[in-house]
Amino acid sequence: MRQTFDEQADRTFGPKHLPLIRAEMARQGLDGFLIPHEDEHQNEYLPDANERLAWATGFTGSAGAAVVMADKAAVFVDGRYTLQVKEQVDAALFETRDLVEGGVPAWLEDIARPGQVIGYDPRLHSPDALARLHSAAGRAGATLKAVEANPLDDAWGGVRPAQPAAAVVPHPLEYAGEDSSSKRARIGAAIAQSGADAAVITAPASVAWLFNVRGGDVIRSPLPLGQAILNADGTARLFFDHAKVTKDLPAWLGNQVSLEPTAALAGALSALSGRKVMIDPGQSSSWYFDRLEQAGAEVVRAVDPTALPRACKNTTEVEGARHAHVRDGAALSRFLFWLDTEAQERLPDEVEVVTRLEGLREATGALKDLSFDTIAGAGPHGAVVHYRPTLRTNRRLQPGELLLVDSGAQYLDGTTDVTRTVAMGEPAAEMRERFTLVLRGHIALARVRFPAGTTGSALDTLARAPLWMAGLDFDHGTGHGVGSYLGVHEGPQRIAKRPDSTALQPGMIVSNEPGYYKTGAYGIRIENLQVVTEASEPPGGERPMLGFETLTLAPIDRRLVVTEMLAPEERAWLDAYHARVLKLIGPQVEPPVRTWLKKACAAL
Amino acid sequence: MRQTFDEQADRTFGPKHLPLIRAEMARQGLDGFLIPHEDEHQNEYLPDANERLAWATGFTGSAGAAVVMADKAAVFVDGRYTLQVKEQVDAALFETRDLVEGGVPAWLEDIARPGQVIGYDPRLHSPDALARLHSAAGRAGATLKAVEANPLDDAWGGVRPAQPAAAVVPHPLEYAGEDSSSKRARIGAAIAQSGADAAVITAPASVAWLFNVRGGDVIRSPLPLGQAILNADGTARLFFDHAKVTKDLPAWLGNQVSLEPTAALAGALSALSGRKVMIDPGQSSSWYFDRLEQAGAEVVRAVDPTALPRACKNTTEVEGARHAHVRDGAALSRFLFWLDTEAQERLPDEVEVVTRLEGLREATGALKDLSFDTIAGAGPHGAVVHYRPTLRTNRRLQPGELLLVDSGAQYLDGTTDVTRTVAMGEPAAEMRERFTLVLRGHIALARVRFPAGTTGSALDTLARAPLWMAGLDFDHGTGHGVGSYLGVHEGPQRIAKRPDSTALQPGMIVSNEPGYYKTGAYGIRIENLQVVTEASEPPGGERPMLGFETLTLAPIDRRLVVTEMLAPEERAWLDAYHARVLKLIGPQVEPPVRTWLKKACAAL
Repeated sequence: MRQTFDEQADRTFGPKHLPLIRAEMARQGLDGFLIPHEDEHQNEYLPDANERLAWATGFTGSAGAAVVMADKAAVFVDGRYTLQVKEQVDAALFETRDLVEGGVPAWLEDIARPGQVIGYDPRLHSPDALARLHSAAGRAGATLKAVEANPLDDAWGGVRPAQPAAAVVPHPLEYAGEDSSSKRARIGAAIAQSGADAAVITAPASVAWLFNVRGGDVIRSPLPLGQAILNADGTARLFFDHAKVTKDLPAWLGNQVSLEPTAALAGALSALSGRKVMIDPGQSSSWYFDRLEQAGAEVVRAVDPTALPRACKNTTEVEGARHAHVRDGAALSRFLFWLDTEAQERLPDEVEVVTRLEGLREATGALKDLSFDTIAGAGPHGAVVHYRPTLRTNRRLQPGELLLVDSGAQYLDGTTDVTRTVAMGEPAAEMRERFTLVLRGHIALARVRFPAGTTGSALDTLARAPLWMAGLDFDHGTGHGVGSYLGVHEGPQRIAKRPDSTALQPGMIVSNEPGYYKTGAYGIRIENLQVVTEASEPPGGERPMLGFETLTLAPIDRRLVVTEMLAPEERAWLDAYHARVLKLIGPQVEPPVRTWLKKACAAL
Repeated sequence: MRQTFDEQADRTFGPKHLPLIRAEMARQGLDGFLIPHEDEHQNEYLPDANERLAWATGFTGSAGAAVVMADKAAVFVDGRYTLQVKEQVDAALFETRDLVEGGVPAWLEDIARPGQVIGYDPRLHSPDALARLHSAAGRAGATLKAVEANPLDDAWGGVRPAQPAAAVVPHPLEYAGEDSSSKRARIGAAIAQSGADAAVITAPASVAWLFNVRGGDVIRSPLPLGQAILNADGTARLFFDHAKVTKDLPAWLGNQVSLEPTAALAGALSALSGRKVMIDPGQSSSWYFDRLEQAGAEVVRAVDPTALPRACKNTTEVEGARHAHVRDGAALSRFLFWLDTEAQERLPDEVEVVTRLEGLREATGALKDLSFDTIAGAGPHGAVVHYRPTLRTNRRLQPGELLLVDSGAQYLDGTTDVTRTVAMGEPAAEMRERFTLVLRGHIALARVRFPAGTTGSALDTLARAPLWMAGLDFDHGTGHGVGSYLGVHEGPQRIAKRPDSTALQPGMIVSNEPGYYKTGAYGIRIENLQVVTEASEPPGGERPMLGFETLTLAPIDRRLVVTEMLAPEERAWLDAYHARVLKLIGPQVEPPVRTWLKKACAAL
């Protein structure tokens, strides 16, 4: 679980591995091969065995792709990673291209020659992405060919890590709040209502939620890699590698769920011949669609039917999240106390900051994992939105600088994600002004009431408007959904500029994390998790409104707040939030921390 | 031009006209016939000759439909018109259904019997709407059949008004700001860029803009009903009824434009055989698509290529809008002066209010038309969003009530649209509080700065948030686009809850009109037009921002503002706005009005 600070790949990977991949391509008669970042599970985090893009190129970003031709190769990254790719990938071997503007299809259309055959692994591409690649290749007169054996996997060979086989364990009802048979019955009814016979569920988080199980196949989220076929009557076939199945799992799943080895999946899909089958083209790779179509099933492209029910946490899950945030808030307050006392004197480096915070979370005795690698960005590193300290980049804190710490934990009762920005020594006036603008946006999104039907994109503006008025903005979403002891990034809801059609609904947990980043100087982000609730009706109110309850409990650095820039209601919000933090976290922490917390939570 | 106060149709229309329509249906062998509100031009306003839905049913709303079967009939209206339809349509003859929930397709599927043939006029339906109707009829085992002659038109016969034939006149360069050849060259280049050979343009506003002409075929907007085929090289064929062509029109259009009679249109479409032709399925009826496909043209469904360039006004048009708003603001200020003096004593009725305002606009000597029928809603009528006074509904103003007046004008240099809500006598505390909430939303949307790429739906929330916080909301969009001496409702930009993908761009004119409506009691709306501009950069700003310049110039009723509810920056906005109104309008009006204006525009 411990966060490491090594670089996981480097520039030597391309020179070492490209010849091996090309040899396998030649053996299969391929002129090129497509290497997406995504793996068989189309999940955010990959097991080491599926870090194919990193192995081929050296690039370790969380999104990207590569194409290898016999005589040239290209790596594709988005705007977040333009600096990182230069450090990690050998430019003599790989041309770097924009993943979004044009992306792989435009490059393919450009460089593929008539008659060329370019391979792809259908397990790794969504049908939507593949359709664009097919057209691009077609325009160049080339063809794409699905491979049976992935030439990269063959090239990787014996040194490739094993596929994970962590035990799949029950997720008890005291945390899940609804048993699997009830979930399967209502999702099954929804499948029936839409006229389908069954749904193929391949997203690991959906499998975990639907069957109330958790696993450990990928780092930072307790996911079991597996698949399921859920029938309209609520019965299901569930596929896991046998090595993962624990002794008590069959009894936990009950007799409506047939637990089968992964090897039986292909046959089970073929057995859907003649049936109407829902499957999500955003979650499931092309391989599933090919299988179903070959079997003569009627494929219905539809959003994963568990996605929305999973996003709307039940009362047990919300209550669990509250407990998890008290526990996490206590650990975080001990950490902020340390930052504000010992660390102000001793000026530790980023790696020590990360290790200290992880140790305090471990000391709760309840930590199952971090929910993502902690971002601790001192000074200019704070402005690198996806910064993660390594031994090579590690930086010591300096007086007059800001430290941005974005971190989270996985507990059985909930997943946390919190960012605090802390002043080391005396902050500059500009830092305080911009921190206060970010805070005003954060408060607007924490306080807002809104009618049913409102989407996250409608609320996003509230978090940005104070920065916009000052000619500033930030280049990431304002909020993402969060799972319940599941992924820290969970759809379908989000709070972002991009228009979306998912209305916020009671029980959805989202982050509220506006920021400001001054390249080469400092970064600011203030992040709490908040859950959608039915808002109390103000006097004279005529319509039911929704609102948010803030879950995260940790002081916001008062030294960075310019009080005069706050409207009275904004100031009242911050004072009330701090009073609540003190009330709930004060009793959890030791006297010196409590004494400090009182000051940190004093009214402005 | 004068606004009338008669009811334009009534409950006797159905009983009188339904038998005539059914007789024509029987003659053509039809079991049913579809009657949309839309006409051949798919335009917001219809000439009297095309008010088919009103003639058949009595219903005069701005959206709706009817279906007539041999033994039953239904009328379809949206939530705005549920009361009105009860008054206007004979319930013994027409079942009333929701236009949006299910709409015509659901009813057709329900009542059509296998083998039935239901007619439709392909000139009146968009292809998208028709596709849904075809599927619904198909599911019921019935078929839809395109008619050559519209049975309703035949039934209407000799008493049907003539098609309008108002003169088409040049719209001079001093107002248009860019000559037609330049517009045709750049739109032609865009057509070429998208790989097409030509575009069929059927929206009357697009024809007017592209060729710098105006007409008078429909009330309230200076539209010439006609069509054009624009070629990628900038040449065009333009189709108008010969009766509309004025002597100087051919010379104005120049030799790159071939002016042809409407009768030549069908042949011109057939002549596009083998060509790649853009046409907008949201603007052009199915008839065009059928013609082009029959001719063997390659149809490219794409947004009208003039829509976005037309929405982004050039500097001449923006400067024209400023002039128009000074002129209109002077007339409006005279009106508000009258309301605040003589009318407070004499308590006129709604019809007098409308007539007075129209007279003051006419007295400018520049009024071409109203831009829509004036809404003057006294007391509870103010809560009826689409209220228009008639002799039957006319209501006298009462002390202690609010009067909502939403009106606009067409001038050669610009189109206006403005709403003011005025207190008669002493307003109640609740009215003032809710007015101030609406005002705060209006100010937020007037002051905001935002980065390029921001859509109207992202800004909509700013105008609603103060109401939401009080448990209130309003059920219409916050803003619509406005043309330049063209339609007062113009896309593609809008400011509304519904997610949209059109970024606001410099030169776009939009309304800013949040409101609050208390059924049976009163209505509040505050509306100004504002144009998107490049915002000045605040000190320390890092990114270019867009913003708005308010065009409308008329005082906002200070007696309805609760000063303590305004933040300092909101109060500063209102004071600065009023100072600007006084500076620009004061010199335009007579001494008694000017004296009044000084008080009405005083700082809070």
